[in-house]
Amino acid sequence: MLNKGSLFIISGPSGSGKDTVLAEVFKRCPELKFSISTITRPMREGETENGKYRFVSVEKFKEMIENDMLLEHNNFVGNYYGTPKQYVVDNLNSGFDVIVEVDVNGAKQIREKMPEATSIFICPPSFEVLKSRLSARGTDSAEAVEKRLNASLGEIKRATEYDYIVVNDKLENTVDDVVAIIKTVGLKTQKHLDFIDKIINR
Amino acid sequence: MLNKGSLFIISGPSGSGKDTVLAEVFKRCPELKFSISTITRPMREGETENGKYRFVSVEKFKEMIENDMLLEHNNFVGNYYGTPKQYVVDNLNSGFDVIVEVDVNGAKQIREKMPEATSIFICPPSFEVLKSRLSARGTDSAEAVEKRLNASLGEIKRATEYDYIVVNDKLENTVDDVVAIIKTVGLKTQKHLDFIDKIINR
Repeated sequence: MLNKGSLFIISGPSGSGKDTVLAEVFKRCPELKFSISTITRPMREGETENGKYRFVSVEKFKEMIENDMLLEHNNFVGNYYGTPKQYVVDNLNSGFDVIVEVDVNGAKQIREKMPEATSIFICPPSFEVLKSRLSARGTDSAEAVEKRLNASLGEIKRATEYDYIVVNDKLENTVDDVVAIIKTVGLKTQKHLDFIDKIINR
Repeated sequence: MLNKGSLFIISGPSGSGKDTVLAEVFKRCPELKFSISTITRPMREGETENGKYRFVSVEKFKEMIENDMLLEHNNFVGNYYGTPKQYVVDNLNSGFDVIVEVDVNGAKQIREKMPEATSIFICPPSFEVLKSRLSARGTDSAEAVEKRLNASLGEIKRATEYDYIVVNDKLENTVDDVVAIIKTVGLKTQKHLDFIDKIINR
């Protein structure tokens, strides 16, 4: 019998460095599947369907909600964001591990639907580093930075809802940590029941 | 507040290669503490107190049982074997991770007393490899090999009582797996509560 893959929920506030971490994790684990988001905002110039998002109309999105086709969804400044269920379920059933990158609200919704998921929160190493990372973009006003800082702190408050917290101080260590978690979940006893059975009843 | 260390229970039948794996794990994780066993069998020639065992009299051992000073104990062909509690508890309280190497019965006893422990079963990759490893010692009769084989299979049957099963096919991968589990347990959210608190209430 084929073992099902495992679902990983990864979150991290603006300034956590989550995107860089994830890019490195995928280099180290090429078999990992990344769940693409469905969104309703218009495509930006130069943006393609091959990236992080799949673009649909608001009408289509609402239809997906009604038909329970989303693992989680959110409305952010007028646009809908969601995680299509089919892609995740199909890959898990085919034995692949899947990573879903969502915010704290999305994570909560997915955890309720798939409680066996493993959730990881990527956290900045300190308030000072968070602030300096958010200020470093340069183009934003002090007010905009303050607003993002508060949003990030609001997410960090909810880090305790996650199974694991990985502090992103040195990128290499952070990537090692996330890869260790993914590897460890694959070593869980319930993934080896057939194997044990085979040795005993050879 | 200092975070407490984590307790790891490691078992593996004769032929699993567990001792070699553990030796490599300790090279990779020099901060890990190894819990020494207390035993009542007489010291063998050349054996010292510095090794895996601490030798005590049967009388002293029974006193330790009565005073609840052992995490687990066992009687094997007339000799007592046990894991002193004090060493484990002291090191955990000082923030060190501790590994206890015991058989399936010892693991069960420790799990009952310390349910927060993480248990790992090292398993041979197949029946054939197990048999060939047990036969390879050369000095034993076919009957002795058969007896050890059955004892090992009896332990493997109980591998499902453990949190994780690590299949020891290639030593390097096995060591990587065990180190990943130890690292992952250190990333659990409850180990980061003070850290999160510090960022939020800076």
